[in-house]
Formats: sequence, C-alpha cells, structure tokens
Amino acid sequence: MTLTAPATPTLLARFLDVRALTERLAAPLSPEDQTAQSMPDASPAKWHRAHTSWFFEEFLLDPAGGYRPFDPTFGYLFNSYYEAVGPRHPRPERGLVTRPSADEVGRYREHVGQAVAALIERGLDEAQAEVVELGLNHEQQHQELLVMDALHLLSRHPFGPAMIDWPVEDDPDPEPLTWRPVPGGLYEVGHDGAGFAYDNEGLRHTVHLVPFEIAERAVTNEDWLAFTADGGYTRPELWLSDGWAAVQQQGWQAPGYWQEQDGQWMVFGSGGVRTLRRAEPVCHVSFYEADAYARWAGARLPTEAEWEVAAGDVAELRGQLLDPDRLHPGVAGRHMLGDVWEWTSSAYLPYPGFRPVEGAVGEYNGKFMSDQHVLRGASCATPAGHERLTYRNFYPAAARWAFAGLRLARP
Amino acid sequence: MTLTAPATPTLLARFLDVRALTERLAAPLSPEDQTAQSMPDASPAKWHRAHTSWFFEEFLLDPAGGYRPFDPTFGYLFNSYYEAVGPRHPRPERGLVTRPSADEVGRYREHVGQAVAALIERGLDEAQAEVVELGLNHEQQHQELLVMDALHLLSRHPFGPAMIDWPVEDDPDPEPLTWRPVPGGLYEVGHDGAGFAYDNEGLRHTVHLVPFEIAERAVTNEDWLAFTADGGYTRPELWLSDGWAAVQQQGWQAPGYWQEQDGQWMVFGSGGVRTLRRAEPVCHVSFYEADAYARWAGARLPTEAEWEVAAGDVAELRGQLLDPDRLHPGVAGRHMLGDVWEWTSSAYLPYPGFRPVEGAVGEYNGKFMSDQHVLRGASCATPAGHERLTYRNFYPAAARWAFAGLRLARP
Amino acid sequence: MTLTAPATPTLLARFLDVRALTERLAAPLSPEDQTAQSMPDASPAKWHRAHTSWFFEEFLLDPAGGYRPFDPTFGYLFNSYYEAVGPRHPRPERGLVTRPSADEVGRYREHVGQAVAALIERGLDEAQAEVVELGLNHEQQHQELLVMDALHLLSRHPFGPAMIDWPVEDDPDPEPLTWRPVPGGLYEVGHDGAGFAYDNEGLRHTVHLVPFEIAERAVTNEDWLAFTADGGYTRPELWLSDGWAAVQQQGWQAPGYWQEQDGQWMVFGSGGVRTLRRAEPVCHVSFYEADAYARWAGARLPTEAEWEVAAGDVAELRGQLLDPDRLHPGVAGRHMLGDVWEWTSSAYLPYPGFRPVEGAVGEYNGKFMSDQHVLRGASCATPAGHERLTYRNFYPAAARWAFAGLRLARP
Amino acid sequence: MTLTAPATPTLLARFLDVRALTERLAAPLSPEDQTAQSMPDASPAKWHRAHTSWFFEEFLLDPAGGYRPFDPTFGYLFNSYYEAVGPRHPRPERGLVTRPSADEVGRYREHVGQAVAALIERGLDEAQAEVVELGLNHEQQHQELLVMDALHLLSRHPFGPAMIDWPVEDDPDPEPLTWRPVPGGLYEVGHDGAGFAYDNEGLRHTVHLVPFEIAERAVTNEDWLAFTADGGYTRPELWLSDGWAAVQQQGWQAPGYWQEQDGQWMVFGSGGVRTLRRAEPVCHVSFYEADAYARWAGARLPTEAEWEVAAGDVAELRGQLLDPDRLHPGVAGRHMLGDVWEWTSSAYLPYPGFRPVEGAVGEYNGKFMSDQHVLRGASCATPAGHERLTYRNFYPAAARWAFAGLRLARP
Repeated sequence: MTLTAPATPTLLARFLDVRALTERLAAPLSPEDQTAQSMPDASPAKWHRAHTSWFFEEFLLDPAGGYRPFDPTFGYLFNSYYEAVGPRHPRPERGLVTRPSADEVGRYREHVGQAVAALIERGLDEAQAEVVELGLNHEQQHQELLVMDALHLLSRHPFGPAMIDWPVEDDPDPEPLTWRPVPGGLYEVGHDGAGFAYDNEGLRHTVHLVPFEIAERAVTNEDWLAFTADGGYTRPELWLSDGWAAVQQQGWQAPGYWQEQDGQWMVFGSGGVRTLRRAEPVCHVSFYEADAYARWAGARLPTEAEWEVAAGDVAELRGQLLDPDRLHPGVAGRHMLGDVWEWTSSAYLPYPGFRPVEGAVGEYNGKFMSDQHVLRGASCATPAGHERLTYRNFYPAAARWAFAGLRLARP
Repeated sequence: MTLTAPATPTLLARFLDVRALTERLAAPLSPEDQTAQSMPDASPAKWHRAHTSWFFEEFLLDPAGGYRPFDPTFGYLFNSYYEAVGPRHPRPERGLVTRPSADEVGRYREHVGQAVAALIERGLDEAQAEVVELGLNHEQQHQELLVMDALHLLSRHPFGPAMIDWPVEDDPDPEPLTWRPVPGGLYEVGHDGAGFAYDNEGLRHTVHLVPFEIAERAVTNEDWLAFTADGGYTRPELWLSDGWAAVQQQGWQAPGYWQEQDGQWMVFGSGGVRTLRRAEPVCHVSFYEADAYARWAGARLPTEAEWEVAAGDVAELRGQLLDPDRLHPGVAGRHMLGDVWEWTSSAYLPYPGFRPVEGAVGEYNGKFMSDQHVLRGASCATPAGHERLTYRNFYPAAARWAFAGLRLARP
Repeated sequence: MTLTAPATPTLLARFLDVRALTERLAAPLSPEDQTAQSMPDASPAKWHRAHTSWFFEEFLLDPAGGYRPFDPTFGYLFNSYYEAVGPRHPRPERGLVTRPSADEVGRYREHVGQAVAALIERGLDEAQAEVVELGLNHEQQHQELLVMDALHLLSRHPFGPAMIDWPVEDDPDPEPLTWRPVPGGLYEVGHDGAGFAYDNEGLRHTVHLVPFEIAERAVTNEDWLAFTADGGYTRPELWLSDGWAAVQQQGWQAPGYWQEQDGQWMVFGSGGVRTLRRAEPVCHVSFYEADAYARWAGARLPTEAEWEVAAGDVAELRGQLLDPDRLHPGVAGRHMLGDVWEWTSSAYLPYPGFRPVEGAVGEYNGKFMSDQHVLRGASCATPAGHERLTYRNFYPAAARWAFAGLRLARP
Repeated sequence: MTLTAPATPTLLARFLDVRALTERLAAPLSPEDQTAQSMPDASPAKWHRAHTSWFFEEFLLDPAGGYRPFDPTFGYLFNSYYEAVGPRHPRPERGLVTRPSADEVGRYREHVGQAVAALIERGLDEAQAEVVELGLNHEQQHQELLVMDALHLLSRHPFGPAMIDWPVEDDPDPEPLTWRPVPGGLYEVGHDGAGFAYDNEGLRHTVHLVPFEIAERAVTNEDWLAFTADGGYTRPELWLSDGWAAVQQQGWQAPGYWQEQDGQWMVFGSGGVRTLRRAEPVCHVSFYEADAYARWAGARLPTEAEWEVAAGDVAELRGQLLDPDRLHPGVAGRHMLGDVWEWTSSAYLPYPGFRPVEGAVGEYNGKFMSDQHVLRGASCATPAGHERLTYRNFYPAAARWAFAGLRLARP
C-alpha cells in the first residue's frame, strides 16, 4: 500500500459519501433483518455497520489520542479477525448479539463519523491519511458484503421477501458469444503503486503467457440453461472431484437463488422472486460450477494474469468496469448485464515478493492465502469507484452467495 | 381434557388477562431480542407471541367461520409441530424469520385478540369454550417458555445483559433439611376430571407405593456448593453413563448460568449477572445433575407418583404452589425461594388408559412420550393460576435452560 | 444378586460349556470379520471374546492372587465401561485395535480359562462363586451381542455375505392373532432372589394393574407388510415425534435388514439375503416402529409389568422361553418363530429399592437407567439357559440391530 | 503421457518386480492390520493390494479380451474413484469390507499377475504397453500410500506397535543450513515427453522467475524444536487463518506422530515409538505448519517452479533423488536424512495447455485440481525408480499422514 496523501477537503467529502452509502444500503432492512445471521460465513448488517466504524476507532482514533470510545465493549463485539488486537466474539454467534440495537449502532456510527471528520478537518499526517483511505476501502468492501449477506438472509425466508422495490425489467436477446485473441509473451501484472491498492495486489511482476482467446462477454443465464438441459449437474465427468461431492451433498441442480415454479425458472434477488432473464450474466455460481461449465463448453476459465492482461487490453471490459453511474445507491443487489465477479482458474496465493503491511492492520489479505480462488472484475453490488483492474477478490470454491459468474477462455 | 364450560364474562376477563401478560413479559425485549434464536430447542419471543395467536386462529376462529386471517402465510411460519395441520417452517430456522417484525406481530396479536373477544361476547358453544380454555393454558405454557428462551439468548451474549431491572436481594441463611414420612400403600394419582387439565394428566389411576420420606424443601445453592466442593462433577461413579458423557462433552462444572469470577460464584439471571444466593433453590440443573446429586447425597429423586402423593399431603408444598401473588407481571425469571420445577425419577410415559384428544389439537402431549423426564411443581416463571398438583412438565435429561431444580426422597 | 454357591463340579462343567459356545459362535468369522467395527454401538467379535475373558481376570483371578496376567496391556484394551477400574480405550475406536490378533485372543481365552478352571477345581468361596456365575451370565449376554454385532457388520458389506450355512426354510401360514385377558389387581413382579439374577431385576415389588388383554403371538412379517402397505412409514400421526424424526433422518421404509429386490421383500440374516418369511415374528424393528405399529393396529405395547404378569400366567409363553433345545450352537442369528425380544412401553428405570452391587462389578446395569426402553423375553440368539421371566433387556428407542420385535396389548 | 513402448522382456521383469514389492511391503501386516481403516482418507492395505490389481483387470485385461475375472464383484469393491467405470463402494466404508480375506486378495493378485505376464509374453501393442507402464506407476504410488496408511493405522493403536523390526540409529549432529542462489529469468518447467510421466506433469512451459535462494537441506527436527520452543504453535500471527483454525481444532502442538514422554520428545514410526533424532528432516507436518515455520524463520516455501529449477540445477538434490539404494524393500517408513516430500507454496492446478488422457483412465490427476497443495521430491517411502524432477505430488493443506517436510526459500 503506497499512498500519496490526498488533499484533505476531497478526503472529507469522500469520507462522508462512503459512510452515507453504508447507511443507505442498510436503510431498507428492519432492526430484525439487521440482526439475524443466516450462516457462519455471513454477518448481520448491523455488524457490518458497527465493524466498519470500529476499524476507524481502532486504527485511527485511538492511536491519535484524545478520543473517548463510544462503548468500551464494542472492541470485543466488532473486531472481525484481527488476532493481534485481542480476543473477539466468535463469528458464528454474531446473530446472538441482539444488543446494541440497530438504532444504537446508528448512534455509534455518528459518534465515530464525527470524530473522524473532526480529525480530517484538523489535518492528517501521511500515515493517518493512509489509514483513512484504507478504512474507506475497507468500508466499501463491507458494503458489498452487507448486500450479499442481507440477500442471503432474505433468501432463507420461506417467502423470499424483496429487499427493495424494483421495477420489472424486460429481457432482451442475449448477445452472441465472440472471442478476442491475446498474443503470448511476457506481461507485467499487479498493481504499480499509483493510487490506492490492497497489499495483495503487489508486487507488480512479470508473467509469461501462451497465446489464448477470451470471451467478450460473460456466460449468461441462457447459456446456463443449455448446460442444465444437457445434464450439467448429473454428469460427474464434467466436475472436479470436490465439486462433484458438493453437487451431491448440497443437492445443487441450478445456480444459487434459482427455483423452479411450475416448470418455469425463477430467481430470487433484491427485488424478491422474479422470472429469470436470459440475457443476464449467470450469477451465484460456485467455482466448481464455473469450472464444470467451462469444461462442458470445451473451454476453460482464464487465469487471473490472463484476465488482467485481457482486461487491460480490451476497451469494452475496461469501459464496463469504470462506468461511474453503474452503482446507484439503493440499487445494490440488482442483476445487471455484465455485472458479476468472474471466477478465474487461479488459486489465491501471494505474488512474488508479497509482504503484508506491518502491524495489526496488515492482518488483512495475506492470512487468507490458502484454499481460496481468485475472482476478478466487480459486480453490480460493488460500490462505484471501488473497482480496479488489479483487484483480487477471493472466495472458497463452494461459495455461492457472492455475486459471482464467469467468462470463458480457450487456447 | 374434560371441561364444564366456564361462564362467558369470566372467560373474557381471563382471556384478556392472559393475553396481556404475554405482552408484558415480552415488553423488555427489543425487536432484535425478540427475533434471535439461541439454539434449536429455544424459540424467539416474537415467535411465541405469534404462535399462541395462530393457535386461536387455527383451532377456534377458522372453524368458527367468517374470520379473515391477518396474513395467510402465518400458518406456515407459526405452526409449531402439528403435522396434521400441514407443512411448517423448520424449527432450527425460526431465528431467520425476520419478517414479520415484532411490531407487526403486535398487530397480529390485536387482530386475533379482538376476533376471539368478539366471539366470546357473542357466546361460545361448549367445544369452543374448551378450545379457548386450552388456548389460554397453551399460552400460559408459552409464557414460561418465552421467559426461558429469552434468558437463554441473553446468557449467550458475551456481557450477560439484564432482561429487567431488579433490586439486589439479600441472602438469608438456608433452612435446615427436614424429612416427612409418607406411608406405603395404594394411592390415586392423576387428574380426576374436575376443572381444566391436559390430556396427559389422566386417567386417574391407582399406584402402589412403598413407604418413603420426602424432603421438606428443595436442594439449595448452598447444598450444591457442597456437592461441587466434594468433586461432584469429577467422579464418574456418581453419574448415569449418559450423564457422565454429557459432563465431559459439554464441560459442565456447575449448574447452567453459573460462572466463576475471581473465585466467587456468580449466576446469570433476568437481572443480569449477580452474586449467588445460598438459600435459593438450585436452578438450571439437568436431570443428570439432579440424579447425580441425589446419589451423592445418599438419597434419590422421587417418582412422579410419590411427588404427587406427598404434595397432596403436605400443606407446605400445596401452599407454596397455590400462592396467587407468586408471579408478578414482569417478575419472570427471578430465582425465588422454592420456586423451581422439580425433576422426578420418572420417564414421561402415558398413564394407563391414556388417549390423546382427537384431531390436530390432540397432537399435543402424547407425541413426546419418549426419552423425556417428568418434572413436577412449578417455577418462578410459571404464570399464576397455571399450576396443578397433577401437572406433568417434561424435558430431555440434558436440558438445563428450564427453571428446574430438585427435591430429595429416600426410603 | 443373591446366590447360593452352586456345587463346584456343576459350575466347572457349566463354565467350560459357556466358554466353548463363545468360540463356536465366533468360529465362522474370519480374523478380518472379527476385527472390524461397523458402528460405535457395536463391537468387534474379537473384542467380545477378549472382554469376557478380561472380566474373569479383573474380578476373579486378580483379586484371588497368584495370577500372572496374559498381557498387562489388555486391561486398557478390553475394559468396556467400568470407570472405577481405570482408563480404557474409547469405544468407537475398537475397530482400530488390530493387535492382538484373533489368534492371540484365542490364546488369551485359553490362558484365562485354564486359570479359572484351576481355581474352581481348588474350590471357591461364596463370593468367588458369585463372581463366576456373574461372569458366565455376562459372557452369555455378550454371546448374543457378538452375534448381533457380527450380523450388523456383514449387513454393511455390499453383498450381504452369509455368516453360516443355513438350509432354506419353508414359510407356513401365519397363526391367527388371538388375545388372552389378564384381570386387574395387585401383582408381584421382579426377581424373588432364588437363583441368579442381575441386580436390576430386583427388588420384587407390588404393582397395581388395570385389566388388559395381551396377544398370544408376536407381530409377524405378514402383519408388518399390512402396516407398510397402509403407509405406515409415511403417516406422521402414527409416530412419536422423535420416532417420526428418525424415520425421516434415517430414511426408514421397512424393518432393519429388509431390502426390496425387483418388487420382492428380501431380508438379510445369518444365512445371507433370503426371501422374507411371512409367519416369522418381525425382527430388527426399533421401539419407535413397534410403538407406531401398535398405534396403527389400534392397540399398544404392554408395560414390562404387564408382560411379566402375562408371561408368568400363560403356559405358551413360558414354554417357549424355557425350551432347552431352542438355541443350537452355531444356529445363532436364525429367525425362528416367536423368537424375538419384545419391546415394552416401559422406560428402563430402577425398581423401588434398587441398589447396585458395591464396587466396580456393580457398574453394570444401574448406570444405563436413562433414555432406554425395556425389552422382555429372549431371542433366537439368546443362549439357552440365559432366559428368565424377570430379565430386563434394554436398548435406546432407535436401535434396530437387536433381535427385537413386539407383542400387542389392549385394554 | 507420451510413451515409447519399452522392450517387452524388460517390462516383464519390471512388472514382476513392482508386483513383488507390494507384497513385501504388506507382509509385516496381519490380516487384521490389512483390513482396518483408520480414517476416510486412508485405505486398508488389503484394499491397496486389490485395487492395484483391479486396475490391470479393468484397463488392460478386460479390453484385451478372453479374460475371466477372478470375481465379478471386485469391480464394485476395488474401484477407487473412476466415475466413468461405474458405481463403487463408498470410500469411508472400506474398513467394513472384511471379505474377501487378505489371503484371497493374495490369490487375486496372483490370478491377475499371471494373466498380465502372459499377455506381456505374448506381446503388447503400444497402447497396451502404455497401460502396463501406467499401471506400474499407479501401483508404485499405492505402495507409498500403503505404507502411509498402515503407519497411520498403527499410530492409532494405543501402544504404537512397530510395523517392522528396525535397529536403533544414532543421531549425528545436523548439518548447518546453507543457501544456494538461483538467478531470475525465463525457465522451462514440466515434463518434456521423454520417458513416462503423469499427465499432470505437462505441458512443458515457460515461467518467469525473480532471483531467489534455496536452502541446501530440508528443515530438521532440531530446527523444528526451536520453532516449538519459540511458541510456534501458540502465535496466531505466524499462521494462515485456516492454519490457525486447524491448530486450535485439532490441538496441534508438534508434528504428527510426535509425543512427549517425561519431557522427552518421542516419535512414532515404522519401528514403533523411538527417541526423536535431531538431524532428521522433520516429517508429518501439514502445509499449514510448513508455511508457519517458514514465516517464523523469515523465509518462505519455494514455488513448485522454483523447486524444479533449483533441483535441476543442484547436483546434491539430484543425487539424493536418484540414489538407487535409497529404498530397501521392507525399509519403508524409515525416517532417513533428506527423505521427505517437500511442501511448496503452489496450489495444485493445471499447467497451461493441460489435457487429461481420454477415457476413464484419464480420471486420474486432473479431477483433484482444487484445494490441494503441491509437494515435490520424494520420500523414504517412495519406491526406487518412481522419482522424477517433474513429479507433482499433492495433498490438502491439513494432511499430516504423508511423509512430508519442507525446504526453505528466500528472495
């Protein structure tokens, strides 16, 4: 993480914007919705709101001195996994923390927000500015998690209630699948140090690629229906061994949130249960499903280096990622065209020369570098401005509650 | 269940009283508190409030005709275990039902309450009056469960918050343990059909008892400290085999809700974490612990028949049970002297000639008659007027979240 | 357990007989068969052979003095559950004890057998004679367990191999079901102290029974087919709540060891997979199934007191139990007419005044007195001479690998 | 897999040698030892002996025609994971297959061995020669598994019996740790197609490496003692998040098979429980432990490409791998200097352009390419002649029963 300190007025405006978006995303959720935890991997919305505030308390306000914590017990309740900071509440029991209430968490957020704003206004040194920048990126990451986790919770409700009101959309014809060749050779990948990036995006380094082609659009729901119709979920030869075990143990017959009603595929999303739209990128598939689909299609997933090289090279991809109007506040969770994280074939491992940041704040990305898979791009739930071509998202191979789809590659 | 129809005005007053107590008991709980589920055996307070209302809808209002249900999906959400009524939401996932909100459940309760009150005012036939009476007893039973479950939830919070404000009580010297002899011979036990009783309390029948003695007070916390100090939780010879397995698997070293702080025993209760009071009956012990204690004390638990015979015979017991002022609204969860359910040595089995009530409403007590143990008496959380000498409460042998203690017997 | 010391010559002959039967029962099992453990509740045949020898070492030879143990590590390996004797190998891992070999266990049995025989020949005091008698009954009990456990193991083999060679039997028409009335009143039940009995069979005591009728034969396979055909396994209203949960979790659709092949019911037994015989008593049913069947049939299970009173009264029952030719060595596991343990409705609890024997040897029956159900009678696998009208067998409600069926009762 | 058909006489001799080694490795194991299964990941020795024979039946003899299978049920019992071949017995239940006996498996091996030898003598076409070569490599791989699994089984015996008689070895001073630099740049890695290799070792391809240093010896037990003494197993900052969870859930305090006796570290191995030898490479560590050790040592694990480049470059490594006297029959399981598989930091993923072999025989390496980690080198239990510089072994990150240690790298 190398930063040049951003100008303070800009930083303050950005701080207020990011903090406000979190509250807007949580607004459609009742106190009850914000408290329940639907599985150990997901956290209550209330927890996300509090944890992102605790981050500023722990790493900025407390070291800065002169700060009175809102409640001294919150450190225990809202630390996520920073072993170096001290003991913390067990993750699978976050749904039992009924107190503080969602309202009190709102007051906590205001208390922390005002203290940070005051500090920014008084002027930050470079290290402090870096912590604020990190804290904002951290909060943006949790904004997407908040939406993912809330959607998962509502999906477990027997009647699949809508999170937000959402007009019914039409379903245009899917685009045909076209391929773009990328020549082999040496490429530089990883973050080059200009602007904010997480530690896991560096060091920038050289990779050798053989020539390949990459699809110019993601796999769609219509594509997936062909896979399903061709027995995709019943043919072990298409699957990794662990993937086939997951299919059988979890009874997968379609992507997450799909449900069949009277012979018609419906899909649960932030607008409730809707008719499946054929042209949308398929979403809520696991790595195992993405891998099996690619094998069925006679193709494969790209490596993360291939993805990054192709994305840097291809204007359409880039444009899609950088469109500033993509995420409208309150629109989180919408399945928009092209807007999914894309599974790569790469395991989540350190780049050559990777070193985590020193201190507790560095307990961030490096400690998860085993048995996870890299996703690239961004989703409809990624806050605008949080995308980067070098961004490395990661989930376990069986996870389906992320906004994750896939894009094919081939030799 | 044999009933003479009670006079309508009285029934209406009683209906309003019971319904109001449920709401008073839930009042100290926030919407978040009312939604979380701390273990599969416990239910959210919101669920208890809704389920007791659904019972009137399902078994009284709907058959009576002309009733518009508050929400047609509530039957699925708030049926507990009546297989005959239709499918229902799985019990371990009650904590994920964040909608309806606690407030909407309040409106549901009013809707149902007004409809029942109107029906009572119009006049009930005998069968309907029986259902109302059953529904009120059912709701009283759930009042105690609501308190038990809420207390269990708060006990899982890392800081053991108080459910209600509660003055600190003094701790008088415990009474000495005295014994009362009961002669052997033939006795009649079970409900004789006068007034309301659950189906499992009949038929009244003859048992043959050998002479025995029964303790004139329950085992106290001070008694239990002697057991603990004598290695009670570390000596397998004192325990049933399954009990010893539970001790080791669950790490029991003291009754439920006890915790040691700086060498001092504290106990969590509705007033938060307090100093242990020596004269109080020990509470939140499992059947296994009660059985081990009795063995350690050179005594045994009474059978349910012995308990019932002794209780009918002993003025002190009777008086204690029938004291109308015992449960003050809002006082639920208090550990009062003598106020615990008492484990007996009896398994929960049908009495000779037992027949459940016909129809879905009879899916009530009979279907649980395996692998549970009978408790007799009543607790500080039992609503006033809900006690009976013939009442058969029951829990699995390892359960500790009930307000359960014990009373010794010996030959 | 009150014993008069049996004459030594008789005891020696009996000792040699019982020990020899164990070896004959194990003889058809290969070293591999004798070592595997098919579930935590079952033990390898090799373990049964060694454990019953260890019992004599621990409770007879070692206290008698002058005895050199065969191998000092066997105490750890072959103690079953006597906490008072010291640590022991965990039960679920008995299948990993590949050493000593089955052959070496044979040598261990000879070593112990010779030492006990020598002691008997030198003359026993009364306490020693009691231990020998207890050890022989203990070994007989394990003979049936050895057969049960071996059968369960072979049932898990994908091809259901036969344990012994067994001629195919014809299938006569089932007898009609007739009922015998038993008058109500006071009865004495339990063991009266003459001859050997386990501690749990006493004290003899008075019970009060209401009049009832009892079936003059056990429920047959043909009866059971009618239950199955009537949707017995698909109708929750017939089942206890825990029973219905077991049906669903374990996928029960028929008794244990039944399998459907091309529309024909087959049953696995000691002779391998055979055609179901209609007149045989149904076997390998759980308490839950027995209870559901009885409810379906408009009847109920008898209590253990009713069973004992009826059996004492009814010549046919008695004759069946006492037939000395019933169990032929090597014939264990055969499904003979009438030869099943019979589930009662009674929980396994202490009789009034029950006291276990002092010392480790008393860790026998009493410590299992929770959450088990009583079976009465004897099965085709019970060694001849081990039956008693007062015998109390017990298993958990879901167990199906015992030779257990049922007999109906009704008011 | 690209093969030139080896000359038949050589192939026959090699076939007989490999088959004979399997039997010599299993010889010290009793029928009981050969049948038990100590965990789902391990298989009984009897199963390995049968499965390696089934492979020849299924992929060579049956397609060749004119072959009578030894027993038609063995296909179901001894298929490991080839979904394309048909249904198979569930892996976690291999320990329940007590029949066929170990002796009969010996006869099965002879039957298959003679048929294959006859076929070889008659002359093989190229495809058949490839299958024989693959079958021999497959069997060699299972030879090491047989030793690993047998050792794991015996380690679960409470008294840690020796598998083979083994002289006590002296414990020389460990060598000092020295480092060898490897320049950065482009390298070719992967198998080049000359001689046998598994499909997962190709295609040979170009990688770009930054300069690094690699240790000239593996980490020793003495090194590990320093890690342990410095709190290695108690400091979360040294561990990956999943690794730290494994430490806590599984209670790791030292490598697998280490045990402390009276303050002295002992280690279980094929010779039973012995004193730890300081100079030996540490063995039976998981990837998580290897990774934590490297972090503690201020170093890291090499990638598999780095390992392969360094091994090809460094005479000492090469010599060590190719020493033909390394594995003496019967010496399997010995902890010799330098003789461990070495964890790399690489996930087990396909090389660029990887394509599995067509047909069922290709269900071999590719289907396991998720959530496993690559090990390189060979161990004391790897059969002589089975090593290759390009060999890619793989295990899940928490596995400890492989003969796995580590070698450090640094920038």
